[in-house]
Amino acid sequence: MGKFLTSRAENYSMWYNDIVLKAGMAENSAVRGCMIIKPYGYSIWEKMQSVLDRMFKETGHENAYFPIFIPKSFFSKEASHVEGFAKECAVITHYRLKAAEDGQGVMVDPDAKLEEELIVRPTSETIIWDSYRNWIKSYRDLPLLINQWANVVRWEMRTRLFLRTAEFLWQEGHTAHATSEEAILEAEQMLEVYATFAEEYLAIPVLKGVKSPNERFAGAIETYCIEALMQDGKALQAGTSHFLGQNFAKAFEVQYLTKENKLEYVWATSWGVSTRLIGALIMTHSDDNGLVLPPKMAPFQVVIIPIYKNDDEFTKVDNYIQPIIQSLKKIGISVKYDSRDNNKPGWKFAEYELKGVPVRIAVGPRDVDSECVEIARRDTLEKTSVNINGIDVYVEQLLSDIQKNIFNKALQFREKNTFKVDSWIEFKASIEKGGFLLAHWDGTPETEEKIKEETKATIRLIPLNGEKEAGKCVFSGKPSEQRVVFARAY
Amino acid sequence: MGKFLTSRAENYSMWYNDIVLKAGMAENSAVRGCMIIKPYGYSIWEKMQSVLDRMFKETGHENAYFPIFIPKSFFSKEASHVEGFAKECAVITHYRLKAAEDGQGVMVDPDAKLEEELIVRPTSETIIWDSYRNWIKSYRDLPLLINQWANVVRWEMRTRLFLRTAEFLWQEGHTAHATSEEAILEAEQMLEVYATFAEEYLAIPVLKGVKSPNERFAGAIETYCIEALMQDGKALQAGTSHFLGQNFAKAFEVQYLTKENKLEYVWATSWGVSTRLIGALIMTHSDDNGLVLPPKMAPFQVVIIPIYKNDDEFTKVDNYIQPIIQSLKKIGISVKYDSRDNNKPGWKFAEYELKGVPVRIAVGPRDVDSECVEIARRDTLEKTSVNINGIDVYVEQLLSDIQKNIFNKALQFREKNTFKVDSWIEFKASIEKGGFLLAHWDGTPETEEKIKEETKATIRLIPLNGEKEAGKCVFSGKPSEQRVVFARAY
Repeated sequence: MGKFLTSRAENYSMWYNDIVLKAGMAENSAVRGCMIIKPYGYSIWEKMQSVLDRMFKETGHENAYFPIFIPKSFFSKEASHVEGFAKECAVITHYRLKAAEDGQGVMVDPDAKLEEELIVRPTSETIIWDSYRNWIKSYRDLPLLINQWANVVRWEMRTRLFLRTAEFLWQEGHTAHATSEEAILEAEQMLEVYATFAEEYLAIPVLKGVKSPNERFAGAIETYCIEALMQDGKALQAGTSHFLGQNFAKAFEVQYLTKENKLEYVWATSWGVSTRLIGALIMTHSDDNGLVLPPKMAPFQVVIIPIYKNDDEFTKVDNYIQPIIQSLKKIGISVKYDSRDNNKPGWKFAEYELKGVPVRIAVGPRDVDSECVEIARRDTLEKTSVNINGIDVYVEQLLSDIQKNIFNKALQFREKNTFKVDSWIEFKASIEKGGFLLAHWDGTPETEEKIKEETKATIRLIPLNGEKEAGKCVFSGKPSEQRVVFARAY
Repeated sequence: MGKFLTSRAENYSMWYNDIVLKAGMAENSAVRGCMIIKPYGYSIWEKMQSVLDRMFKETGHENAYFPIFIPKSFFSKEASHVEGFAKECAVITHYRLKAAEDGQGVMVDPDAKLEEELIVRPTSETIIWDSYRNWIKSYRDLPLLINQWANVVRWEMRTRLFLRTAEFLWQEGHTAHATSEEAILEAEQMLEVYATFAEEYLAIPVLKGVKSPNERFAGAIETYCIEALMQDGKALQAGTSHFLGQNFAKAFEVQYLTKENKLEYVWATSWGVSTRLIGALIMTHSDDNGLVLPPKMAPFQVVIIPIYKNDDEFTKVDNYIQPIIQSLKKIGISVKYDSRDNNKPGWKFAEYELKGVPVRIAVGPRDVDSECVEIARRDTLEKTSVNINGIDVYVEQLLSDIQKNIFNKALQFREKNTFKVDSWIEFKASIEKGGFLLAHWDGTPETEEKIKEETKATIRLIPLNGEKEAGKCVFSGKPSEQRVVFARAY
């Protein structure tokens, strides 16, 4: 049993790592930087996939699958793209092993060297746009709205489970449009989809905006993003949507015939979220007792634990519990009934608290006599005795309350930790305490770079539809039209 | 429009390739042997995943995700496993690119060489059993029932879309058990799951059996398989389930404490099906007009095509069609309404015939007047005029009939092409005509090898619960207790 976690105050990073391991979400593998997503963690990813996939299909997208390998030469075709990804990629050079010459194990067969090396995809713009050249001939083929669920690899030097791993799972949308306007609308629409998903399902409040040029995706004209604030005061980028202009269309020669029979380059977007969202989910809601999961994302929403001393008591309690399980399942609530007899109730209580199950129902012989159950909610740890008449509606309402409550709690936390700062002294003092800093910036990459060097803070986003307000750059004193959001980030 | 396919009689391989390309299922990519699965093909894969995933969960399995990379040394730990996979794998040797020295493009950075090379997984037994060592300590941790949905890479020299590709998508189950008996039951259970899925959903009749030692999975004690017969008389292995004994437990030192407090090695199974099933689906049912899809696997089951000459007629027909769409959707039938005006009805008819949509409904102004629709079924190409009263029930029944009919058709084909042969002359003549040959075999790998050399036929399976019948090996004349199934295979 791993009830006892490092506390957040003691060591936030260790607390996070403890939860991931002890709740059975993920673990490190024998391959540097690559994680193993364990069943409990993977089940949350499946829920994320299912909701997002539906949202993508409702907005007209179809799924497809492109190769995991990308020829090396493809990378060089878009100049800023290769700049952004060449430093961190896994390179295939050979296609065969053979028995080692010393008779021990296997070695790479030097005769099986590839003519051109292949890269394991860090993202798929290049291989996809190479295909789009054949798919798109006329305005009738547009818009082309494709999504892919896949694994990608970025050779990160410092990795952390879910937050930054060499291999991760994600979805990447890649769309092609006849006009710049339509592509921008698509990029904005997908940002809205991500924001809705984060807030309504993950219960994570997010800010929406665009990145400064320094933080843009390699190859994008504009990068839209959602940013969330973690409990340690650091920001986490939770999803991005890119307007790619005609960069990839030009790099891969993708042109279409307009209605007027003119050849024009196609306009592009790409957008993605990844297993990183599981890290965001953990860090937003969890506490020193373990995970706290929003009911809409919990692998099971309710756990029922029987309390008994002997077989007779078990029979009595079990008979009472069975119809409760049925009535909950009937209205779509997912239930785990843990009647295993190899662990004591106290152990189970701690275990499911650690695993963040939103609602726990305990039933002992006295509850049967009084027609009650004991209900504990994970978010507040409050316990109540509830009559079993209408228990299904009660639990349904409770799950909905928990979903709202943890969102509001996270929102209040963000609000309390968002500060307007107007001087460089204030900025430097404030950034040490964490949170989002709303500050004026002169709009230059140089200033952003210097601020980063001095404070490790970056511009997380320039708010979309942000209030215009004349001011002076917190660093350079030069004029600014709008506050932007600074923070230290994951 | 790609209505005109190569016919099966003309060139079966080209017919297959034409269908895959022209129905928009998949295409080759810029990376040798790696395919692109296009939306229509991927949608079929999604349906397969959804049904199988439910069946796996109903039998107690959970999903997880393991790294795509496997350290080279892991392969050597199980002797026959490395023998089976070393010859065809993608090897990562470096983790960075850099600007090329001639200023053109990028090159592999020689300073970023890995200490130990990584292999892109061709299958995951080794990396998974390396993890299981930490997951399994006691009998309480067993059985461990895990499945993974993933991409794998086998560097095949001769590739064909869906049937044999360097990268493919699949699921791989990896289970651990306390006893040999339990592991064998698991392997057999998963074979049953695959057979049920093939027959009830894909409408592909399959034989069930075990492989001969020559054809076993590298590292297995027993390989169970399902085999289907394609229209050209060649066999296709559609799924395998392996009893791995304690081979991987011993290679990766996975032991558990029994109830009696003794340390014992764990027993294992693994089982998988892949995007190859899409190839099997195409080759089993399709005809010279294109794809024929079983209704349970069709991306959409019904296509509705309006027929009109002007806007008034369109309005009339469209108003009539809308409630039909609603009534079909209401009972769970998936419908595509193709009212695009850039193609003529004839073009659309051919297009959806090519795409194998099970039922086509056409509606013109005269149908509106007579309260009818024209219904065409894809399997037989029969057309009927049907009154719209009760159209929903009619279509539902028709879909069910089509599902059954194409299964029966495939079953009859297999029965007609299964032959008992009792002499070597008969065998050689019969194998040229294709089909399954039931023949006696002396049980030795040498005989199997010689038969393969002379005829390209292999033992597809030794039937499970096959009739015992004394006989003489068709090749060596030595005694045999049971007929086995020979065929040339994909």
